[in-house]
Amino acid sequence: MRNPDELKTVVEEAIERFAFWPELNGQTASMRYALAEMGGKRVRPVICLATGEACGAPVEQVMPAALAIELVHNFSLVHDDLPSLDDDDERRGKPSVWAAYGEGTAVLAGDGLLAEAFRLAASYPSPHVARELAEMTLGMIGGQYLDTMVDGADLKAVHRLKTGCLFSASVAMALWASGVPESEQGAWRAFGDELGLLFQVVDDILDQDGFFVSEGADGARRLADEAAARAHERLGEVSVDTAVLDGIVSALATRAV
Amino acid sequence: MRNPDELKTVVEEAIERFAFWPELNGQTASMRYALAEMGGKRVRPVICLATGEACGAPVEQVMPAALAIELVHNFSLVHDDLPSLDDDDERRGKPSVWAAYGEGTAVLAGDGLLAEAFRLAASYPSPHVARELAEMTLGMIGGQYLDTMVDGADLKAVHRLKTGCLFSASVAMALWASGVPESEQGAWRAFGDELGLLFQVVDDILDQDGFFVSEGADGARRLADEAAARAHERLGEVSVDTAVLDGIVSALATRAV
Repeated sequence: MRNPDELKTVVEEAIERFAFWPELNGQTASMRYALAEMGGKRVRPVICLATGEACGAPVEQVMPAALAIELVHNFSLVHDDLPSLDDDDERRGKPSVWAAYGEGTAVLAGDGLLAEAFRLAASYPSPHVARELAEMTLGMIGGQYLDTMVDGADLKAVHRLKTGCLFSASVAMALWASGVPESEQGAWRAFGDELGLLFQVVDDILDQDGFFVSEGADGARRLADEAAARAHERLGEVSVDTAVLDGIVSALATRAV
Repeated sequence: MRNPDELKTVVEEAIERFAFWPELNGQTASMRYALAEMGGKRVRPVICLATGEACGAPVEQVMPAALAIELVHNFSLVHDDLPSLDDDDERRGKPSVWAAYGEGTAVLAGDGLLAEAFRLAASYPSPHVARELAEMTLGMIGGQYLDTMVDGADLKAVHRLKTGCLFSASVAMALWASGVPESEQGAWRAFGDELGLLFQVVDDILDQDGFFVSEGADGARRLADEAAARAHERLGEVSVDTAVLDGIVSALATRAV
């Protein structure tokens, strides 16, 4: 099984090779900028591929699902950065898509990334991968709504939707793509749910906002450690080798960037 | 078989009953405004249902595909109306979504409508309905890009993508939803392609722009009549009762609104 760095390299190669739908015409420039040139940690597709490998599926089989997740993640960043939402003109030290290509093109770029994600998810013989992606995307949009449009929205609900949904989907889509029957998905899905919480709490600690403010430094650290412990526990309940995923959990819990 | 007015009523009832994904939270208000309160001709879902009925499928079986098409159509209107794209603050005599709910909520409303459409399309046992929707949506986005961002883009290409794709999808998704095998879809698909051209040329005649300007009044009328004739011809090639669809073609060719 590949380690996370190797999986990230495989994801980057797949992103480089990814052929956008030709009828998008020149719209693809801004989409490629968002997806490839702006970079990213690729943590969601790596989790997706690592889950697939743990379940015995070849990387090529899970890659469309992994790319779909990364495309949805990028869609959400492109739209969230818009002046009418978070109004960020920079991301990862580069101009955000609207700052580089204009606001209208950025709206369409996000739309295109979302539609490409569904094209990838619908490339599987069964519709489960696409269903999972649609439901998780809807949850994520609801989270962004609560976060940007509702004063005093419950932080836990916002995080569970805005961040958690895509982490849950990273695991769940890998299960469907690998052919794991629904009856064996329980512990895996509980694992996916913990990952989102873990990622977000650590994000808040690093950014000193969110849970860092509401729970204090120690409280937030405890929340992160508890989520990591539960994630390891859920992995202990599945009957395959989860060493790579355990490593990812530990790395997420202790990451400094 | 139901006539177009009866099918439109069935579509309106299904829209009224449609349950948005609960995790969208308060975001659904702007989405319901776009989908239900702003109204619409519902021509795409009516074509979808009429195609399904001609192929012998019950309306309930084709309705998710029909609603998905209408949701994608509405998604495109909500985003196209944004200040950074067409900058329209009114549609059908009502404030457009961004004018009524703010720009950020309108971006998310469009996103939510698109994701709901994919949830509906992915509800079928086979992934073909969702694949068709994804590909046609990508073409439509490419058309909107050409229309709004590229000076002097070829009008035929713009229309084929921006309008034609969703009409083609209205027929193609109904075929998959009705279980028509791919080997029997040829004439049907050619029919769907003519519908989009017919609708757009008549639109241009009514608005006195597009083909009306490039081809002149008579030239545009001839284009419309030729598209209608070819659509009837394609329907003549399928071995089922297409009376309702022939009626829709004639109504589209002679419509005054």
